[in-house]
Amino acid sequence: MKKLINAPEDVLAESLRGLALSHPELEVDLADRVILRATRKDEGKVALLSGGGSGHEPLHGGFVGTGMLDAACAGEVFTSPTPDQMQVATKAIDRGAGVLHIVKNYTGDVMNFEMGAELAAMDGIEVRSVVVDDDVAVQDSLYTAGRRGVGLTVLLEKIVGAAAEEGQDLAAVADLAARVNGQGRSMGMALTSCTVPAAGKPTFDLPDDQMEIGIGIHGEPGRHRVPLAPAKDIAAQLVEPILADLDFTGSPAIVMLNGMGASPLIELYLMYGEVATLLEKAGVRVARNLVGNYITSLDMAGCSVTVLKADDELLRLWDAPVVTPGLRWGA
Amino acid sequence: MKKLINAPEDVLAESLRGLALSHPELEVDLADRVILRATRKDEGKVALLSGGGSGHEPLHGGFVGTGMLDAACAGEVFTSPTPDQMQVATKAIDRGAGVLHIVKNYTGDVMNFEMGAELAAMDGIEVRSVVVDDDVAVQDSLYTAGRRGVGLTVLLEKIVGAAAEEGQDLAAVADLAARVNGQGRSMGMALTSCTVPAAGKPTFDLPDDQMEIGIGIHGEPGRHRVPLAPAKDIAAQLVEPILADLDFTGSPAIVMLNGMGASPLIELYLMYGEVATLLEKAGVRVARNLVGNYITSLDMAGCSVTVLKADDELLRLWDAPVVTPGLRWGA
Repeated sequence: MKKLINAPEDVLAESLRGLALSHPELEVDLADRVILRATRKDEGKVALLSGGGSGHEPLHGGFVGTGMLDAACAGEVFTSPTPDQMQVATKAIDRGAGVLHIVKNYTGDVMNFEMGAELAAMDGIEVRSVVVDDDVAVQDSLYTAGRRGVGLTVLLEKIVGAAAEEGQDLAAVADLAARVNGQGRSMGMALTSCTVPAAGKPTFDLPDDQMEIGIGIHGEPGRHRVPLAPAKDIAAQLVEPILADLDFTGSPAIVMLNGMGASPLIELYLMYGEVATLLEKAGVRVARNLVGNYITSLDMAGCSVTVLKADDELLRLWDAPVVTPGLRWGA
Repeated sequence: MKKLINAPEDVLAESLRGLALSHPELEVDLADRVILRATRKDEGKVALLSGGGSGHEPLHGGFVGTGMLDAACAGEVFTSPTPDQMQVATKAIDRGAGVLHIVKNYTGDVMNFEMGAELAAMDGIEVRSVVVDDDVAVQDSLYTAGRRGVGLTVLLEKIVGAAAEEGQDLAAVADLAARVNGQGRSMGMALTSCTVPAAGKPTFDLPDDQMEIGIGIHGEPGRHRVPLAPAKDIAAQLVEPILADLDFTGSPAIVMLNGMGASPLIELYLMYGEVATLLEKAGVRVARNLVGNYITSLDMAGCSVTVLKADDELLRLWDAPVVTPGLRWGA
């Protein structure tokens, strides 16, 4: 295993320590593994909490800041954080207007966030939750009942974060989150496996001449293993299932071409060109886009495509200022 | 070779096409392979041109925009762009106040930028140049007489870009560039080789239990090959040669922990924690930092450290607004 780490069991703690040193505008609670804004938002505004297993950086800790999340709970690599982490975080960020929990649809995360919300309720904090399940690749998986939560999480955290920042109440923010989740779809692929530090070897074997289509963000199996193909064909294998699942014509779309961690930007831009061309041919009008590593799978090479059916309101919230380590514009 | 590409010979053209589709605020001249701001800066301001071989993205095209570069010339992967590309770009961005060429110290780039400057002079444009040579690893290399130009290029383009944006004249901007170059040092390492698309196989073999210290950004050999070591030791092997080369105490420092392309953010933040700790112990006060993939080497796993001795003026220029695909804050 070739990684820039010390002992595998210290990866998360030491990475959080580096994040804290790099970003003084964040408060990193190293004991509870919660990343918060060093300066809380104004009293009376809804707060946003997300979190999940680590290994998907910048998600979620890198999206804490003005216009996006108020806090993120970091679990061990590919392992859900615990309900007490969520309780600590929820309590720390509540400004009297309630807290929205943004949960990716994995069995462990859903269960723990439910318990976390119950604990927060006992603290007298109103909590609403949205479960993101945008992955069209598979219905159920190794870690999921129903569809997995993947790339749409990034877009949802940005848009809903803007709504919370401008003072929308908890019901409105939760409704918006549900609406965004209903209007977005994703599909990913891997050229290589990732290697979990504690395992020390690749999660799966993928021969030199094959790739996995419909992969999850933990290296869990996708739809099928197929021969390695040119970028043009890969783009089609990602875009077609998305368009088959939801009609994206007639509205502006926000599109993300996301890298899985080890694919360089020169390839991601190339892939974006292929994806944008296919979408245009299918009558989808791409109004905004994001190209880069936003929700990764450790050192996996590959990419995913997310398409969100937007409208003027969602575009306005998308364009609103955001100041986080992972996403930043307009301020 | 597992890459998100079509034919190897089309990688650059197709990646530039994707960049153009993703960033309408850029003008991408696909014929000449020049990336420009879609909206030129005001008349009377100094313009900045950089460029070099592709495969280091986001450098340089991703640093074109307000507060940084006015244009970048993209060569084939790891191959210098040509003098006529530089002539076209220089002419396109000159606003009557002259153009600064920012050149990384590689024999091909230096020669071609010299010819490009001569061609621009024949067009009546005043050109000054700075050659960046910050790599403490080796004195001469496969592609270089003298030290190689690496990570400092990113910091220099940001700082000098701010000076040009605020209206400093060509002499002042060129002097500033030379000063920044004199005050910064870098050192890199690789866990794995990169694979040039046209070659189709790794540039060098690096056994599973070894790493290369002092690597260049093209996979050219470093100082030595040593056994794989913990992050803490890697950090020491990068920081010590930098501190041995220049005294960084007594001034604030700007530090970049840069990924080589295939190392995920969870590892880069961990490495930053180790580097920041070593610098602090050595009496270096880190005033600003940057962690992420800024000057890469295709799909190489590894990282580099850059330290720049700053002062209030350099920090002010560092903090000035920048709006580019690769670096963005304050606007």
